[in-house]
Amino acid sequence: MFVIGELINGMYLSIARAIKEKDKAEIQKCAQVQIEAGADALDINCGPGCKDPVTDIQWLVETIQEVTDKTLVLDSSKSKVIESGLKVIKNKVIINSTMADPEKLEIFLPLAKKYNAKLIGLAMSSKGVPQNKDQRLELAAQIVSTCQDVGFPVEDLYLDPILLPVNVGQAQMVDILESIKDFKIISEPSPKTVVGLSNVSQGTYVRSLVNRTFLVMATAYGLDAAILDPKDTELMNALITAELILNKQIYCDSFLDAYKKK
Amino acid sequence: MFVIGELINGMYLSIARAIKEKDKAEIQKCAQVQIEAGADALDINCGPGCKDPVTDIQWLVETIQEVTDKTLVLDSSKSKVIESGLKVIKNKVIINSTMADPEKLEIFLPLAKKYNAKLIGLAMSSKGVPQNKDQRLELAAQIVSTCQDVGFPVEDLYLDPILLPVNVGQAQMVDILESIKDFKIISEPSPKTVVGLSNVSQGTYVRSLVNRTFLVMATAYGLDAAILDPKDTELMNALITAELILNKQIYCDSFLDAYKKK
Repeated sequence: MFVIGELINGMYLSIARAIKEKDKAEIQKCAQVQIEAGADALDINCGPGCKDPVTDIQWLVETIQEVTDKTLVLDSSKSKVIESGLKVIKNKVIINSTMADPEKLEIFLPLAKKYNAKLIGLAMSSKGVPQNKDQRLELAAQIVSTCQDVGFPVEDLYLDPILLPVNVGQAQMVDILESIKDFKIISEPSPKTVVGLSNVSQGTYVRSLVNRTFLVMATAYGLDAAILDPKDTELMNALITAELILNKQIYCDSFLDAYKKK
Repeated sequence: MFVIGELINGMYLSIARAIKEKDKAEIQKCAQVQIEAGADALDINCGPGCKDPVTDIQWLVETIQEVTDKTLVLDSSKSKVIESGLKVIKNKVIINSTMADPEKLEIFLPLAKKYNAKLIGLAMSSKGVPQNKDQRLELAAQIVSTCQDVGFPVEDLYLDPILLPVNVGQAQMVDILESIKDFKIISEPSPKTVVGLSNVSQGTYVRSLVNRTFLVMATAYGLDAAILDPKDTELMNALITAELILNKQIYCDSFLDAYKKK
């Protein structure tokens, strides 16, 4: 599993304050703590209250690049914010995200190609969230087909089936799991798959338990990447154990520690 | 998930002692604790050191039937021990277990029919443990086909894919998970599936974590029943949450408590 740390996000008060006051140490600490906990990449989101995300995302990227060469995941629905971040990128980079609408893909795919970025494509459009597996597959196929048309490598595309909170979309959870498997067979080479894990537990009383249970299932269904809180030790241990059972990491008695030293 | 409590087993010293000294209270407490923790049925195994299992299994069955009408699962490879237990059964009953050899099925299937018992069929033979998915499916199909020949209802058959310890059979774990799904399509109506969960973590240092991670995956693959330790709260919570995500229990904020009151 490609683990994308979710904690550098202005929706958290400590990060919002650090962005506002340009407190490098706070951001760099948040980056390092996530990497030590097992993150392969870091999501960067200025947050809903940020007054000047076009400027602030550059500061965030530069601040984080001072302490790590891990992949950065630029998280915004606004192409101007994304492009601003891309202009100062030195590390590997993933754009998070585009919807499936042709007019969105027309903007984000050329941007990804220009900056040699990977791209997260959401299986949703401006018409709203898909209601079943077929709608997810249709939207995902639309994205893959556009990638092929414009010569964007499909293996650099991460398809997101749109994970709903279990207390809202309970009837769709099996469809979402099966979409993870179905997306892989849309094309050869396969696109990759990703979820924003914390969505599944929004509004529930036992968030970590719901998160890790869904993640174990999604891992069994072949999920490639997840945006999550790597500081949640129980979540990471569940993930490591799931990958062990699926024979993706060789067994040793101290397999939990071995993963973190990889 | 049909939860079969594994704790009434003479391999545990307290149970071996209780059997030897005919300590009813100890056995009845072990039955009740498991039921309170969420067990739908209780496995009963006299244990490897038991000198007279033919007699002792009757005492165990009668002792447990004094305090519960839950299904009892008679656990022995010896048909004499099983039949002895069946003679005093009043509750619903499952025989645990037969192998796939014709000479075993010739004994256990008539016994199950005579006493109106369900039957666990192991996807293994006296030649040994299967080495891959195809061998598992072949042995399972052999059991199903014999059931059909002798008129034993396939929906009363629980097929066990033979769960190996992850530190021994790591390369077979995906095959085992896929067998759970494949066994369901051997016939219509489908046979049921069961695993002896604790096997997966034999010899590992984090048994509960390995158990619950495998159980969540197996639940996603459609497992019907598991023999497990219902007193392991983290295991039961993982199972309940997996079933919630799979939409098998309606969401409510206190879904963990709601399950136990079902």
